[in-house]
Amino acid sequence: MNQRVFSGMRPTGKLHLGHMAGALINWVKLQDDHECYYSIVDWHALMSDYADSSRLRDNCREILLDWLAVGLDPEKCTIFVQSHVLQHAELSLALSMVTPLGWLERCPTYKEQILNLQNKDLSTYAFLGYPVLMAADILLYKAGQVPVGVDQSAHLELSRELARRFNQFFGEVFPEPQALLTPNPKMPGTDGRKMSKSYGNSLNIADEPKELWEKLRPMVTDPARYRRSDPGDPDKCPVWDLHRFFNQDLEERKELEQGCRNAGIGCVDCKKKLFVHVEKMMVPIQERRRAFAAREETLTDILRHGADRARGTAAATMEEVYRAIGFYR
Amino acid sequence: MNQRVFSGMRPTGKLHLGHMAGALINWVKLQDDHECYYSIVDWHALMSDYADSSRLRDNCREILLDWLAVGLDPEKCTIFVQSHVLQHAELSLALSMVTPLGWLERCPTYKEQILNLQNKDLSTYAFLGYPVLMAADILLYKAGQVPVGVDQSAHLELSRELARRFNQFFGEVFPEPQALLTPNPKMPGTDGRKMSKSYGNSLNIADEPKELWEKLRPMVTDPARYRRSDPGDPDKCPVWDLHRFFNQDLEERKELEQGCRNAGIGCVDCKKKLFVHVEKMMVPIQERRRAFAAREETLTDILRHGADRARGTAAATMEEVYRAIGFYR
Ligand code: SF4
Ligand code: SF4
Repeated sequence: MNQRVFSGMRPTGKLHLGHMAGALINWVKLQDDHECYYSIVDWHALMSDYADSSRLRDNCREILLDWLAVGLDPEKCTIFVQSHVLQHAELSLALSMVTPLGWLERCPTYKEQILNLQNKDLSTYAFLGYPVLMAADILLYKAGQVPVGVDQSAHLELSRELARRFNQFFGEVFPEPQALLTPNPKMPGTDGRKMSKSYGNSLNIADEPKELWEKLRPMVTDPARYRRSDPGDPDKCPVWDLHRFFNQDLEERKELEQGCRNAGIGCVDCKKKLFVHVEKMMVPIQERRRAFAAREETLTDILRHGADRARGTAAATMEEVYRAIGFYR
Repeated sequence: MNQRVFSGMRPTGKLHLGHMAGALINWVKLQDDHECYYSIVDWHALMSDYADSSRLRDNCREILLDWLAVGLDPEKCTIFVQSHVLQHAELSLALSMVTPLGWLERCPTYKEQILNLQNKDLSTYAFLGYPVLMAADILLYKAGQVPVGVDQSAHLELSRELARRFNQFFGEVFPEPQALLTPNPKMPGTDGRKMSKSYGNSLNIADEPKELWEKLRPMVTDPARYRRSDPGDPDKCPVWDLHRFFNQDLEERKELEQGCRNAGIGCVDCKKKLFVHVEKMMVPIQERRRAFAAREETLTDILRHGADRARGTAAATMEEVYRAIGFYR
């Protein structure tokens, strides 16, 4: 089994607890026993944000800080910015040679994204080709495994098909990347919907405890529990989903669950208990974040070394690509 | 006036006299008083030849030999292979961010090419985007002037529009390249149609004198001149177009013209006279070609130095692009 892992995130702003629970915590685990390449995919962000790219630089820095804060360790994994490694563009161009237009036009996530981002003009050549660039991101490192949420499996399918198609035309170069399905605990936002920046319901990794509490306090609970005296149902309460993630004190959880069901506790009490655990997990993360934020040179070094390492692997893959295609060297 | 010139040719086989007369002779002149970048655009060749790329390497070498043979001088101009300079792929990706799909779908040359190359499947993502890569080729060197035939002006128009559009989104980086309309003398093939590899009517730069004569001898002449005793009309004769290009002895041309019009000479005589001039021009070219062909290391060096020089200019342009877009560096 190929132990090389690739994953990326678009730098579009501060990361929230959904990113942490659904992806980053898994990434941190993977770095211990896999060769991991984690990329801040700024070209992908530019595809949707080209009309105003003024936040791109800051967004990359913020996401880097979030990654380091939650425990990605540049000694254990390769952290880099996609645009720092030219070979992403190069392999994307190579793959595009054998990418049927129909595959892209029919791509379900393409149509979906166009609908999701209706306030942006995504009818560009780059955006049509984002699955090609995404395939290049993965194949450049010959990653055997890609940690994905279930909703991203269509993207990975196209990467697998492009690997097959390249191999079919030019000879066996790329392994077909496999989905590494990782735990993706439910992490609702303050309004009970999926946590998402665009809904304005996010708890961010970088939010200070005070800010977190101000968001938690008015958070939606079991909608059937109007009054303090009404019994509640934790299974219908988004706050309880957060308890499940943050609160590992099963004894306490049992008590709270009972208190909810028999109206023995109020929701504010329940949230206060939750907040203790949120603080316990997030304060060290935020301290790490602040420490890195104060060391601008360290950040630059991390990205420089990451890019160097990524470039080494990428260049080796491209050598194979050149030979396979038969370029004049 | 910006004196930087870019031009490229797709390596799809040996070049013919049409390439020489319509482009290369102009390129050779330009290298004396312009900063010229001449690129063997192998990515563009791969777009149409991906189904069988086995000739790519040889085709690049052949075109390089043809260029050197006609007098492109690596001391005076920058000769390089497109794929050796990664920034072509990179800038193409950057430009694609702001390229409306509609511009490409409506591109007249796109539809035309699809029709021209009906035996090849060109419904790929790369092929739809070839005007973007072409714009990147030119803009990467901030070329102010692009020597083009009249039929290529539509391509250049898209490059100009993409320069404007990039500048509009990200700030003034690219000059709009101007068409440098160069002499394009009529150079018919042996069947009287436009000289073209696909018609099988070409006289190649690399053809030995014996081969050239074998092609010239049966060449189509004034179609009204059936018999030796019929008078002919040079203005309706493709052989005469070649005389105009190769034969600078105006005295002799006058005599031949008269001899044709009053049936004083036969077509074979006329062709023999032509062949003397063809030989005079082509033999030194072919000698140079053979000399270079025997020095494999020199060829490698020329391309290596060319790529280094091109990369220097390209990297400087990309630095501006990074700043303009606002990448995190
Ligand atoms: S007590 Fe806790 S689990 Fe029950 S409804 Fe309120 S917040 Fe939700
Ligand atoms: S004599 Fe020469 S110009 Fe006249 S028709 Fe023959 S080949 Fe053409």
